[in-house]
Amino acid sequence: MDEVEAKVAEVELAADAGEKAPVAKKEKPKKEKPAKKEKAPQAAGDGKKEVKETQLGISAKKDDNFSLWYSQVVTHGEMIEYYDVSGCYILRPWSYAMWESIKDFFDAEIKKLGVKNAYFPLFVSEKALIKEKDHVEGFAPEVAWVTRSGNSELEEPIAVRPTSETVMYPIFSKWIRSHRDLPLKLNQWCNVVRWEFKDPTPFIRSREFLWQEGHTAFATKPEADEEVLAILELYRRVYEEVLAVPVIKGIKSELEKFAGGLYTTTVEAFIRNTGRGIQGATSHCLGQNFAKMFEIYFLNDNRERKMVWQNSWGLTTRTIGVMVMVHGDDKGLVLPPRVAPVQVVIIHIPSKDIETNVLIESCKEIAKELRDAGVRVEEDYRDNYKPGWKFSNWEMKGVPLRIEIGPKDVASKQVKVVRRDDGGKDFISVENIGDSIKNLLDVVQKSMLEKATRERDSCIVQARSWDEFMAALNNKKLVMAPWCDEKEVEEQVKERTKADLSGAAKTLCMPFEQPELPEGTVCFSSGKPAKKWALWGRSY
Amino acid sequence: MDEVEAKVAEVELAADAGEKAPVAKKEKPKKEKPAKKEKAPQAAGDGKKEVKETQLGISAKKDDNFSLWYSQVVTHGEMIEYYDVSGCYILRPWSYAMWESIKDFFDAEIKKLGVKNAYFPLFVSEKALIKEKDHVEGFAPEVAWVTRSGNSELEEPIAVRPTSETVMYPIFSKWIRSHRDLPLKLNQWCNVVRWEFKDPTPFIRSREFLWQEGHTAFATKPEADEEVLAILELYRRVYEEVLAVPVIKGIKSELEKFAGGLYTTTVEAFIRNTGRGIQGATSHCLGQNFAKMFEIYFLNDNRERKMVWQNSWGLTTRTIGVMVMVHGDDKGLVLPPRVAPVQVVIIHIPSKDIETNVLIESCKEIAKELRDAGVRVEEDYRDNYKPGWKFSNWEMKGVPLRIEIGPKDVASKQVKVVRRDDGGKDFISVENIGDSIKNLLDVVQKSMLEKATRERDSCIVQARSWDEFMAALNNKKLVMAPWCDEKEVEEQVKERTKADLSGAAKTLCMPFEQPELPEGTVCFSSGKPAKKWALWGRSY
Repeated sequence: MDEVEAKVAEVELAADAGEKAPVAKKEKPKKEKPAKKEKAPQAAGDGKKEVKETQLGISAKKDDNFSLWYSQVVTHGEMIEYYDVSGCYILRPWSYAMWESIKDFFDAEIKKLGVKNAYFPLFVSEKALIKEKDHVEGFAPEVAWVTRSGNSELEEPIAVRPTSETVMYPIFSKWIRSHRDLPLKLNQWCNVVRWEFKDPTPFIRSREFLWQEGHTAFATKPEADEEVLAILELYRRVYEEVLAVPVIKGIKSELEKFAGGLYTTTVEAFIRNTGRGIQGATSHCLGQNFAKMFEIYFLNDNRERKMVWQNSWGLTTRTIGVMVMVHGDDKGLVLPPRVAPVQVVIIHIPSKDIETNVLIESCKEIAKELRDAGVRVEEDYRDNYKPGWKFSNWEMKGVPLRIEIGPKDVASKQVKVVRRDDGGKDFISVENIGDSIKNLLDVVQKSMLEKATRERDSCIVQARSWDEFMAALNNKKLVMAPWCDEKEVEEQVKERTKADLSGAAKTLCMPFEQPELPEGTVCFSSGKPAKKWALWGRSY
Repeated sequence: MDEVEAKVAEVELAADAGEKAPVAKKEKPKKEKPAKKEKAPQAAGDGKKEVKETQLGISAKKDDNFSLWYSQVVTHGEMIEYYDVSGCYILRPWSYAMWESIKDFFDAEIKKLGVKNAYFPLFVSEKALIKEKDHVEGFAPEVAWVTRSGNSELEEPIAVRPTSETVMYPIFSKWIRSHRDLPLKLNQWCNVVRWEFKDPTPFIRSREFLWQEGHTAFATKPEADEEVLAILELYRRVYEEVLAVPVIKGIKSELEKFAGGLYTTTVEAFIRNTGRGIQGATSHCLGQNFAKMFEIYFLNDNRERKMVWQNSWGLTTRTIGVMVMVHGDDKGLVLPPRVAPVQVVIIHIPSKDIETNVLIESCKEIAKELRDAGVRVEEDYRDNYKPGWKFSNWEMKGVPLRIEIGPKDVASKQVKVVRRDDGGKDFISVENIGDSIKNLLDVVQKSMLEKATRERDSCIVQARSWDEFMAALNNKKLVMAPWCDEKEVEEQVKERTKADLSGAAKTLCMPFEQPELPEGTVCFSSGKPAKKWALWGRSY
């Protein structure tokens, strides 16, 4: 921390009045814009340079005021801009590029599984929306309705999709006739709208968000079951391999499963600073509920009329928020190399010992070599900022590696490399620098996952009684507890824990990896015989 | 045509009652679903096979009943499914893959120009929407309004974006302060909604559609002007290089330009069968109108407060519809190789002279070689359809090349290749078949553009008087006519032509390539001195 403070002080942070156009006053910030009120710590300029430098720093500490810290990180890190429709956010290029990385990975993988992309409409008729009763009950309160076009009232209000089961399945019933039409595996990348009234948080909970939704139909349950897990494994890989965020795979309780589905599997992440679990992505087996309501039948080999088995599965831009929360530090974002829009930033260190042009030429050669090796490189030769300001700026944006090149480096054919994740510094020869840097990026990626996994593991505790459970919970832990697996008991636990300011606890999942459950073990809450271990926690 | 008829007769088209599940009656088709009423021409099965074959053929002729033909082609070609919200369509995987091809091309090109992708919200506050007066007048009648969430009325209705100028520019005003923040070049791939009441047509006019919208800001007008044309050139390339559709570049008249902008450039395509022009994509210079309304100022080098110059530009899924209309024939879709989801389909011709397994093995080797060469291949070894049925099926879907492999081909190490665009047949050696097929795909691509260009060119005529103009128009031509370039005169022409059943004519553009305009030439309509040649036509 002290190093951070020192750096901030070292950097010139004087407000550059001259660079700010005297525009008229903008709209008053809405209540979910705390970040705008925060000013970066400002120090007087040293007066050495004509053009003064200013930077919005991260003033909040991750451990002290997590929500303010998060808000500063996503705004000053140029991921998010606030917007005048409450609960909606702008994804700036820096975060949208991360979404593109996630998309590229996942899209290629599902195509290998034979899934095809399509696009279904944004709007759902009321008739289709309300067809599956449990499903509509789960979503109805959050549905946005279009009732007017121009100045005319629509004959019937039309819903904006909160998810597309009811958009797609009437058509599935038309497309699927024979066993030869199965499996049907579709996916779409799109926006959905859920008009929630809980506090919105960028990426984590917003009224509009981007996601992929897969919708598949099979002749048999085993095929559907198998796909549920294949997709869940891809979700695990998105988190662990791309975002370096450890997740726990498991199955949701009856209370927490998808409305209208048969069972829901999930990958659950954990935010250490708030002690909260967070649902990463879910892969649902819908069973035959929707098939029945939407009449999705097929003739099997023996010409018998059968209902299909269906799955749906979704991964949203929430992924990005989880990654920020897990890895970010008091300097700002810390991006895993695989998802970083820029993996390496090259900064020249001007000096009277070398002509700046010559120095920059050396930098450009390195940049070219890295690009040829497939590394995403940014070169920062701006002359109106000092190196220290640039260091802080790129640290705030989370770029995994910084390469500094000064006159001595040019002479000794090496560069200084600084890791964003652990601050480690090293000198690397310019010979084969493409390979060296690619290896180092792999090391960073791996090491970020390992660190996050260690931290997460240290925050999961077992509890066998109510007192142990509450103690762990209030110590910001996730709790593995033997459970009777009864809906009413989960409801009671929610009720009993919600008195606390931090909110109610619930099951995150029943992990696939179960500790031993000796005969006679009882539920931590009900005292009834325990059926399995469940992972409990407060959650987002 | 006779060949088509013969083929249809040759193929078994008996309805396969056994393959149709006895599902309950579906929703009544809406009025824009003419395709559903059309049945394929049906012939009695020949009784030779146990599993009978059925296929929805294209019964309408492109020259006789264009709109029915189009509707059959996009539905039976599995591009579009109709939907129960009027004016909204489902993009099936076959057409969505085409959109992905267009995206991949265009996205890579704009990234080279330094444009970055972002994502702005679907919703616009009323306050922002109405800020630029001309702009809102252009869009207001088509705006869909969300007024309700769940059962609660919203405090203020929220518009669904018809385009994102008013979504983005309040933020531009925040982000842009100094000349160092310019140029700002953003793009997003998203859905937009325009609740039009004209007849909807798949791809061509729908209430929700997919597009990209670029929004850029510059310090000077020349920079903006230059980008307008750079983007327009990319649009030309999407049409001509990817979709093999010839377009005419030009500038829109005052009456036809973008609401609120300074000037609009366009690429205009032509549909021969209806004699109508169709706007392909537009690249607008917005001038400073929006900058003024949204207060987008910057300080230039001399610390003077200046307004930015802005552009916006968009390309939609309409591209796909234009391509279908231009290239399709009475057998169905004809896809240019660059946009075809499948470029080559391999069909084995079973025979008593060879074991089917052996034959299929040969096919698979060819398929692998083509895939290794980067060709998109589909293999159709279905045993419940005869080759003739498969031929028709893949022709209907527009696959550019069909490879047939029978016992003789295996023996002589060759394959039969049939072109979809001109029906040309040839035998190609299996040696270096990857290269041969790639070359042939290039030939097809080029030849489709040439053919479409010849046809288009033969339908543009010059007219110097009203009579010539009307004669050409009613002969389904586009008309190049000398024009005084006065708004009122275009309005008069619209008025005078709209009596005709085919609808009003308007300017499509004033082409950049202008024929000579000798001094003293007068406007074909007003008789005033002509200022330039304009391209007129009825249009979509």
